[in-house]
Amino acid sequence: MQGSDGHGIIRLPQYIKRLRSAGMNPRPIMRIVEDRPATAVVDGDNGMGHLVVSHAVDIAIGKARECGVAWVGTRNSNHAGPASLYVRRALEHDMLALYFAVGNANHLPPWGGMDMLLSTNPIAAAIPGAAEPPVVLDMATTVAAYGKVKARAKAGREMPVGWMIDRQGQPLTDPTRSEDGFLLPIGDHKGYGLALVFGLLAGTLNGAAMGRNVVDFNADHVTPTNTGQTIIMVDLAAFGDVDAFKARVDQLERDIRDSERLPGVDRIWLPGEQSHAKRGAYAAAGYPISTGLLGELDQLAADLGIAPLEIEGSRR
Amino acid sequence: MQGSDGHGIIRLPQYIKRLRSAGMNPRPIMRIVEDRPATAVVDGDNGMGHLVVSHAVDIAIGKARECGVAWVGTRNSNHAGPASLYVRRALEHDMLALYFAVGNANHLPPWGGMDMLLSTNPIAAAIPGAAEPPVVLDMATTVAAYGKVKARAKAGREMPVGWMIDRQGQPLTDPTRSEDGFLLPIGDHKGYGLALVFGLLAGTLNGAAMGRNVVDFNADHVTPTNTGQTIIMVDLAAFGDVDAFKARVDQLERDIRDSERLPGVDRIWLPGEQSHAKRGAYAAAGYPISTGLLGELDQLAADLGIAPLEIEGSRR
Repeated sequence: MQGSDGHGIIRLPQYIKRLRSAGMNPRPIMRIVEDRPATAVVDGDNGMGHLVVSHAVDIAIGKARECGVAWVGTRNSNHAGPASLYVRRALEHDMLALYFAVGNANHLPPWGGMDMLLSTNPIAAAIPGAAEPPVVLDMATTVAAYGKVKARAKAGREMPVGWMIDRQGQPLTDPTRSEDGFLLPIGDHKGYGLALVFGLLAGTLNGAAMGRNVVDFNADHVTPTNTGQTIIMVDLAAFGDVDAFKARVDQLERDIRDSERLPGVDRIWLPGEQSHAKRGAYAAAGYPISTGLLGELDQLAADLGIAPLEIEGSRR
Repeated sequence: MQGSDGHGIIRLPQYIKRLRSAGMNPRPIMRIVEDRPATAVVDGDNGMGHLVVSHAVDIAIGKARECGVAWVGTRNSNHAGPASLYVRRALEHDMLALYFAVGNANHLPPWGGMDMLLSTNPIAAAIPGAAEPPVVLDMATTVAAYGKVKARAKAGREMPVGWMIDRQGQPLTDPTRSEDGFLLPIGDHKGYGLALVFGLLAGTLNGAAMGRNVVDFNADHVTPTNTGQTIIMVDLAAFGDVDAFKARVDQLERDIRDSERLPGVDRIWLPGEQSHAKRGAYAAAGYPISTGLLGELDQLAADLGIAPLEIEGSRR
């Protein structure tokens, strides 16, 4: 509903494959295994990541209300969809949030290396304004996410220089050859450092998979992924007047939006502004599903012996 | 002593200029102005940033010991030197730390823009290993720090494409023309998003300068900068066995260091490993100061009516 198309209903077939092959626990008993006033570690019992991280967010909101900030980690979790979903939960509570996660397949070598020991480990943040939309950042630490490479291959389009390199360190622009190369981190060694640090925080600290222990959930539907995520919630009231803070955010957003543009640039966007607009548009007009994806979902429904999606106004 | 040469004694003349022109308070009375179990805001009373952030770190360590995590912000602070100094404080306490700051001069426009509303807002992190050195990240959110541009101009060397663009959006490679252009963020719009978010956390949240309110401390030695910084401390014991965590960090560091290298790459580095080596080397053999800088420091000593540096084994 926010246009994170690589993370929405397109993932349903994969999630169901993993549930049916007992690679994910449909009825997890989630437990807090470490607990301090402002921190916790949630063991997700190999449940769907969406459930585990939602639970972690609930815990973090309560603790942040008490302590000003909360830092809650997960282990034995799974892929949880777009990171921005979870940081956005802060907004209705007059909080701001940060999120780190270990990605579910390693596509990134350390800087200068060829062993794919790292994932596109993302960071997300949500910070509320008053009249202006929230600033919502949700980004991989690689120049391109792997899904974008796959999309180029499907569309038969070359990749720009800077997305991937091959095993000689040369630019790789043919997306059908993506198996012969690696994603590039943003800012070269800097993005490598960010991917490593976010992975240490979301994986290693929580006792979740990191480095060699990461399971490629595209190739393996059975082995538990032991995914780790970290959510940090900050209660804005612990830092002063909440309305004054939001007014400062609004002013900054307006200063940025109204600032002078480079030749040929129509508009300066704030992080999350385009997703915010899509939420509104899709809520009003419905969410577009491609014929291909709809076919997959129909096939999935048939396999499961359930009714296919009924879609209002669809042309099928 | 760790090779952060753009942030060490080279800054002393500038700090003293600001102190002498009453742009910085030599005897600040620092106060906690917001206080919750795991959070605080420190008003630095326009004291040197090194004092203010050190005080914030002390507070954060105490709160993290009680609560598992602490998030402490500063306002009315100043330039505090290299971020890594402060996150490294975590290591002796079996903690890990994150740090965000608003830079003291805006050199970065929003993505697509020309108004320099953002700084190179850095992030730093320190995470301890056991036998292996700590992972210490300390990076600006721009491809190059502004100091590197100045160094190229001094050395008469072109900049590589990707460091800066001019007002037409074209690559700017002549460092003597740096006033005609802007730094580029890492990963294009992604680095813009990071610089904005870290600035919101370190500046806007703390009631410190951000955006249009940032004072260029290179050009203006009088106006209080109202610099903001944020330190986050995490007590490792709140996440399980500390030795087991450090052993996992060691294993990851070794896996990365021993992993396969691209042709022509001699060694894969962990973030902070080179600084760590420099600390050892400089502690043993002394810290190298260029003749030019030594001359500046001698001049400064003469201006202040104090004795110049006595340097063991110097060739002066």
